[in-house]
Amino acid sequence: MEKVAVQLGQRSYPIVIAPALLANAKLQPEFSALWHYRQVIIITNPTIAPLYLSSVRDLFAGADVHELQIPDGESFKTLQTFEQATSFLLQQKISRDALLVALGGGVIGDLTGFVAACYQRGIEFLQIPTTLLSQVDSSVGGKTAVNHPLGKNMIGAFKQPQAVLIDPLVLRTLPEREFAAGMAEVIKYALLGDASFFDWLLAESDAITKQSPAVLSEMIRRCCQMKADIVSRDETEQGERALLNLGHTFGHAIEAWLGYGTWLHGEAVAVGMLMAAKLSASRGDLSSEQVDTISTMLTLFKLPVLPPAGMQIADFFPYMKTDKKVKAGKMRFVLFEQLGQAVLVDDVTDVELNQVFANFHV
Amino acid sequence: MEKVAVQLGQRSYPIVIAPALLANAKLQPEFSALWHYRQVIIITNPTIAPLYLSSVRDLFAGADVHELQIPDGESFKTLQTFEQATSFLLQQKISRDALLVALGGGVIGDLTGFVAACYQRGIEFLQIPTTLLSQVDSSVGGKTAVNHPLGKNMIGAFKQPQAVLIDPLVLRTLPEREFAAGMAEVIKYALLGDASFFDWLLAESDAITKQSPAVLSEMIRRCCQMKADIVSRDETEQGERALLNLGHTFGHAIEAWLGYGTWLHGEAVAVGMLMAAKLSASRGDLSSEQVDTISTMLTLFKLPVLPPAGMQIADFFPYMKTDKKVKAGKMRFVLFEQLGQAVLVDDVTDVELNQVFANFHV
Repeated sequence: MEKVAVQLGQRSYPIVIAPALLANAKLQPEFSALWHYRQVIIITNPTIAPLYLSSVRDLFAGADVHELQIPDGESFKTLQTFEQATSFLLQQKISRDALLVALGGGVIGDLTGFVAACYQRGIEFLQIPTTLLSQVDSSVGGKTAVNHPLGKNMIGAFKQPQAVLIDPLVLRTLPEREFAAGMAEVIKYALLGDASFFDWLLAESDAITKQSPAVLSEMIRRCCQMKADIVSRDETEQGERALLNLGHTFGHAIEAWLGYGTWLHGEAVAVGMLMAAKLSASRGDLSSEQVDTISTMLTLFKLPVLPPAGMQIADFFPYMKTDKKVKAGKMRFVLFEQLGQAVLVDDVTDVELNQVFANFHV
Repeated sequence: MEKVAVQLGQRSYPIVIAPALLANAKLQPEFSALWHYRQVIIITNPTIAPLYLSSVRDLFAGADVHELQIPDGESFKTLQTFEQATSFLLQQKISRDALLVALGGGVIGDLTGFVAACYQRGIEFLQIPTTLLSQVDSSVGGKTAVNHPLGKNMIGAFKQPQAVLIDPLVLRTLPEREFAAGMAEVIKYALLGDASFFDWLLAESDAITKQSPAVLSEMIRRCCQMKADIVSRDETEQGERALLNLGHTFGHAIEAWLGYGTWLHGEAVAVGMLMAAKLSASRGDLSSEQVDTISTMLTLFKLPVLPPAGMQIADFFPYMKTDKKVKAGKMRFVLFEQLGQAVLVDDVTDVELNQVFANFHV
């Protein structure tokens, strides 16, 4: 049993991480307020529903429980799906004192959270992330959004959940490729803020790959704790929180260029982090050995280290220039001050990018 | 020159009310932070643009100023228009440190505010309300939203502006019917919280109708002050703020039943307030003379006192049961404890409504 408290004043909430928590959540004192809602709406998808929907339904026995399934995949994280969800809630006469439950990965969590932020100007929601990526990253911190054809997560809100319920055993039904994509975000935490966690990941790589429940619980807790600490200090990304976007400026461009859902988010972030490392190395802040170590780590966890075939550095520009981190007209990148310490940089020029990534052997 | 401060901690902001303020805003110290934005996007409509857009453009001389016009009318306060606006911002490469300016009435303000709440998870915005209704009500307090076919303002957010700039002289170009609709919200403040303001409105009715700048400024200031006080105590409508919905439960049903944009919002609210008064009278909290006085006041300011032809009380139910004030399955109404003092009530039954409004002679 691992616990993390996200400290945000009145919007504080608990994260509880434990094997078989989905079955045992009712025993958790942290969750006691969850069982009093009169109306509960579980938003999930056809992949997750047959596996875990009945467990979650059981938790809310006694309430008026509704379910809404949306198609699986990043390509459905759109304003159209958002509209369908709000129409469903209105048709079912869901009132403002209901609870939404996000049961699924990042798409379900981001979409449900955005619906919770906007439906009748805000109702409460619970995160039950079922992918590694959402357990370590997207379910924590209150960033919610849908994508726009011109940019990922461009329409959204900051909306904190009431609680996050994480059961690492659900990862056993996660496809290997998605587990790997989640590891990209895990590695991200090590790279941006904790070099000793980087070493720990290397040491525990076998146990992680074999999904030892204890090791996974500790790994997820360390990620959630780092994220919670950063979010507590900078909820709406005025500064430090932007460091969590390590690899994301390049990564979002990859996702958008390919069309959302072709590569997994984590895969794009993996390549993005390596590009950030390469750029940092060209500036003298990382050694080429460190870049190689990062590349080795990504490969160890079955992640890509090269951009998609055919994608040139020029293809990144249009997406990077509408990135949410753009400020005063300048692109801003999260780069490395050193391994385990990221920094926000706004003096990267097109010329420099063209030079460093001329032949794209990142 | 009248000023109101909305006290909301870090989200506090000034409301400044003065004749010719649109021309003189640069002289106001309260607005000094507004002139530093690099990108400014004015959202307005084809009715307002020819009248006031160039004045607002002049205020932001030196910035990169964009404009977006959306069609005039409540029927365009939709998720589709919201999507068009966000697409425009992305196409124009508007970054998160830009300023949106809502130049128009309640539709422009609510829509622009909701775009500001969601674009890249939130950017800043300025309210320049150009209708009486938006000057006394919708531009203050941070309620933003779009409508859904199943209910008004069902998709939205709480998003406070940076400032509210109110120039009563712009009301001279407002159609008489819209001025009257705004007076419904003015009368609402008197009815819900200040009986002496009710008397003042009667005494000043001539000066108000003739749009004396000094009298209008004072009237608008008194409304904004009441709203600011309530919002400061209850920003997200956990309690007291719901009193501002006096007349709105019935009123929204009228608007939705007719189709948004057929009646003006204020017209529907006028009838709604009279229905609330009638219901309160049947409960013994108002005298029939007081109901008559309210009816006289509404008529004096050219407002309707009867629901649309053909609308039966049964036609109200479907809309009222999905009202945002519904809590624990119960409809909640804002009724009168006495004239000048509203109260939230949740024990109104269908039977009672059928009885009081059997033949609809409100």
